[in-house]
Amino acid sequence: MKIPIEQIRKIGHQIFKSLGLNEKDTALAVDVLLQSELRGISTHGFVRLAEYVPLWEQKRINPKAVFKIEHQTPSTALLDADFGFGLLSGPYAMELAIAKAKKVGTGWVAVKRSHHFGIAGYHAMLALKHNMIGISMTNANPLVAPTFSKEALLGTNPMAIAIPAASHPPFVADFATAPISRGKLDFLHDAGQESQENLIQDKDGNLTTQADILAQGGAIRTLGGTPEMGSHKGYCLSAMVDILSAVLPGANFGPLVVPTLSYLPENDEEENNGIGHFFGAISINAFQPADAFKKRMDKWIESMQKAEPIDGKERVLIPGEPERLHEEKHRKQGFITATPQLVKVLKSLSEKFDLEFGLEFP
Amino acid sequence: MKIPIEQIRKIGHQIFKSLGLNEKDTALAVDVLLQSELRGISTHGFVRLAEYVPLWEQKRINPKAVFKIEHQTPSTALLDADFGFGLLSGPYAMELAIAKAKKVGTGWVAVKRSHHFGIAGYHAMLALKHNMIGISMTNANPLVAPTFSKEALLGTNPMAIAIPAASHPPFVADFATAPISRGKLDFLHDAGQESQENLIQDKDGNLTTQADILAQGGAIRTLGGTPEMGSHKGYCLSAMVDILSAVLPGANFGPLVVPTLSYLPENDEEENNGIGHFFGAISINAFQPADAFKKRMDKWIESMQKAEPIDGKERVLIPGEPERLHEEKHRKQGFITATPQLVKVLKSLSEKFDLEFGLEFP
Repeated sequence: MKIPIEQIRKIGHQIFKSLGLNEKDTALAVDVLLQSELRGISTHGFVRLAEYVPLWEQKRINPKAVFKIEHQTPSTALLDADFGFGLLSGPYAMELAIAKAKKVGTGWVAVKRSHHFGIAGYHAMLALKHNMIGISMTNANPLVAPTFSKEALLGTNPMAIAIPAASHPPFVADFATAPISRGKLDFLHDAGQESQENLIQDKDGNLTTQADILAQGGAIRTLGGTPEMGSHKGYCLSAMVDILSAVLPGANFGPLVVPTLSYLPENDEEENNGIGHFFGAISINAFQPADAFKKRMDKWIESMQKAEPIDGKERVLIPGEPERLHEEKHRKQGFITATPQLVKVLKSLSEKFDLEFGLEFP
Repeated sequence: MKIPIEQIRKIGHQIFKSLGLNEKDTALAVDVLLQSELRGISTHGFVRLAEYVPLWEQKRINPKAVFKIEHQTPSTALLDADFGFGLLSGPYAMELAIAKAKKVGTGWVAVKRSHHFGIAGYHAMLALKHNMIGISMTNANPLVAPTFSKEALLGTNPMAIAIPAASHPPFVADFATAPISRGKLDFLHDAGQESQENLIQDKDGNLTTQADILAQGGAIRTLGGTPEMGSHKGYCLSAMVDILSAVLPGANFGPLVVPTLSYLPENDEEENNGIGHFFGAISINAFQPADAFKKRMDKWIESMQKAEPIDGKERVLIPGEPERLHEEKHRKQGFITATPQLVKVLKSLSEKFDLEFGLEFP
């Protein structure tokens, strides 16, 4: 279903207002989800309301959260997100990191008692206009099995790094540290397809291609897939994100994350400190003049783009390029194409909150 | 060949003195290489002298380098390593990052005009005794092809992160961001073996298992191996290390790294600013009391260790554990076992510098 950009923005506005957010927070939360839609990452867009709203109904998400800096130094802060939306605590923490970087060169903010923060890239990209490198990461529901484990102990734990260039668009790497996402597996299962090999395992730890294996007690492997292909490096990477995002601020980590997915078993963790995030802002001028750096980034980008591509491919892509092309296409055409899942979610929320979205639901 | 630890330390001392290093620098350079040997990473130990000495002979490595801070802020510094040994500029930069973290919570030092710095973990681990998280990374000779590229444009670009725990040994992830190392490929080729599948490609970008493919114009794939298995995420990771380590300080980056390997083609880069490194020190007390954090790290470690392992494996390993067990074994037995390659290198250096190592060369 085609939905004009301004219409989906208004729909998001109606929904978040219904959840009790004030005007400013509503506009920000909608902006984060809309950015996901525009950048072609619809798995992290408005469809996530299907998870947020039940958590809000259970009073696990606090729409009136007051963020509190528990401790800080000139270059760091620990933020208590008061179980608010990660869509709001993420930008708040990133702006705090940016303010610190303006003063002492870099800023680093760890967040506890938070929720899903949307796409990691949104937050990292906030640094770009300040001539800074932005970094963001988060932990998540345990779905990933470390090398040699039968059990899922880590999240898909995404990270993003956004780096400005001069005449080229910025470099924006935004990736889950696991080789395949839950959303992609759901998509494959719904389409009656199997997963690629070497990416997921069954409850006994054996490789499988069965796309609904997470609901059967299975797990996603770490990046690399098998020990022979370097899965221990993927494990190191996922672990690093979990520790910086959650152990450092004091959020729930690894298998102790209190699940937000119905098919994950409850854990017996008595204390819930939510999930955690970690943000960094690195002022380029704190190392060398930003203009010189950005010209060097242009050269870096061009050195990748001019490489000879393998047969059948146009050229080497720069991280962030596919998402940017999606965004340009969406802005030009003026609408997003809602997936059947999103249409279903919007229809349900329209009924639940008695809202008129101006859409003709099937 | 078995070489007692104190003997290999003395041998290293004789060699670095012969290269013109002062006493203090000699002791440090030897310590970095010895640590590699003890931790079972012999590919990064004294055998690397086979690469260092020719560079020294060509006056590309400066044994009298004077490190200079070109620019700094309270939490950052840009270091010009004056083409000295990375074995020396690494610890210097890391100590500078630690000093900054003591004052403002974190410290970040980017280094240009440097050389190979040994194992990344050595530098990161310097932060541990200060109740800090240590991070180190470096770029390297272009041997890795980004997703869709026929050409090798990035290095194996290792990174390390060292994180202290309370009653457990520290977490030390130290890994090349590519799925297999040049050293491992050389080893396989010498043993007449092939590489695992999905790790390397020939000069046309096609997957191969031919272990000497780098000398035939081939390349290592990024972590993940194929686009279907997430190689674009490995590309993001390698790129991040290259940009922070080299574009940020102004070292040579990507395909512009001036090769230190004879089988790589010369590049036409007029300006040589060496390779670069990036170091970080994060004071845990800048977020929360270090004691509380370290107890949480114990719990993190235990939550991995108590997971049910896949059949045939004892348990999930903690990053750094295999290397620590190697070190304990070596220290207990009192000697390292030199590989045939290392014996050959030592014999050649004994003759070149007319040194008496007390070894009976075959």
